[in-house]
Amino acid sequence: MLRVVVLASGRGSNLEALLRAIDAGRCHAAVVAVAGDKPEAHALELARQRGIATHCVPFRRAARGAWDTELAEAVAEAEPELVVLAGFMRLLGPAFLDRFTGRVLNVHPSLLPAFPGLSAPAQTLAAGVRLAGCTVHLVDGGVDSGAILAQAAVPVLPGDDEATLHARIQREEHALLPGVVDAIARGALSLTTTGPRWVAAPVAAGVLRSPDLGTR
Amino acid sequence: MLRVVVLASGRGSNLEALLRAIDAGRCHAAVVAVAGDKPEAHALELARQRGIATHCVPFRRAARGAWDTELAEAVAEAEPELVVLAGFMRLLGPAFLDRFTGRVLNVHPSLLPAFPGLSAPAQTLAAGVRLAGCTVHLVDGGVDSGAILAQAAVPVLPGDDEATLHARIQREEHALLPGVVDAIARGALSLTTTGPRWVAAPVAAGVLRSPDLGTR
Repeated sequence: MLRVVVLASGRGSNLEALLRAIDAGRCHAAVVAVAGDKPEAHALELARQRGIATHCVPFRRAARGAWDTELAEAVAEAEPELVVLAGFMRLLGPAFLDRFTGRVLNVHPSLLPAFPGLSAPAQTLAAGVRLAGCTVHLVDGGVDSGAILAQAAVPVLPGDDEATLHARIQREEHALLPGVVDAIARGALSLTTTGPRWVAAPVAAGVLRSPDLGTR
Repeated sequence: MLRVVVLASGRGSNLEALLRAIDAGRCHAAVVAVAGDKPEAHALELARQRGIATHCVPFRRAARGAWDTELAEAVAEAEPELVVLAGFMRLLGPAFLDRFTGRVLNVHPSLLPAFPGLSAPAQTLAAGVRLAGCTVHLVDGGVDSGAILAQAAVPVLPGDDEATLHARIQREEHALLPGVVDAIARGALSLTTTGPRWVAAPVAAGVLRSPDLGTR
């Protein structure tokens, strides 16, 4: 079982999806701790209900480096093989990332490199694109700039607002993130010191068109 | 029948796809002229073989504005309702675009706004993304920056090089471009003075994941 620590700031829907996939035998990992920066985060409550260890390290802008270090200590205590950011709304500094180099994942609600940063579904709508999606990537020092591991595309539909589009994207996050974690657990995706390497990637097929203008 | 003028610099595979779709009754348009900037372009030869009027206006960097005007004159002669750039490798200046405002389409081999400009498939590979694609968009004064009309996503596969990825993307260009032209011909896509508007867009469904990590 791959030991995973999840970092979350919000309601924890990706954490929940990961736990469900684990329960269903679709993801050979164990969430050994959940850490957050907001005491009121529903993700922490979700973990507590399941008897998973939780750590809350409230963000301190004035002591940025110390916060990174304290969070890293809390996470390291659980001896994770993988750290997953699931709706974690803070950038992690070197004091954290250097400790878990190449083993920190994030899931972002856009087809990166398009629309990094905050409010990606709103950015997506404002740009008038026809395909949206999500990306699971390694975390480096930049904003959603680390190596891409997997992506899923969904259409932007007529009448979409930020909420409907975000919900459609999140459904795919909930499939993609446990899939990537399971691939790491099974060794299909190898997080080597020189970067991630798919050893046995299930080949994607097909095409997604928006609007669906039919075949040639 | 929607009167279409095609501009092409290269081998004309998108022109060919458009002509095939028209022949097959899948695109209710007529290519009334093909214009280019390179006398040796295969696209012009293809047009000649079919008895379609051709115009070649070799690019003149030293007389940029005059070139735009001369090309616009040649195109205007055919009285197009739509101008389609199909592998046309020159940026068009205001002397051209102002004459056909909001009625010039381009097909670009990336999921815009990612990877505008030259060598999009190479940019796509270099960025390490897992999903690639193509975009049909209106042409404005910028580089691949006009309003997006339709997009198609395809996976980047293990072992892809620029040629294999570009070929996979182009197969989708060959479906998407005639589809958009037909939508305009049928009035499903309206090119209004305030911008493009899908009146009746066939709704896209589904998702494309790369790698294909299965369903939740």
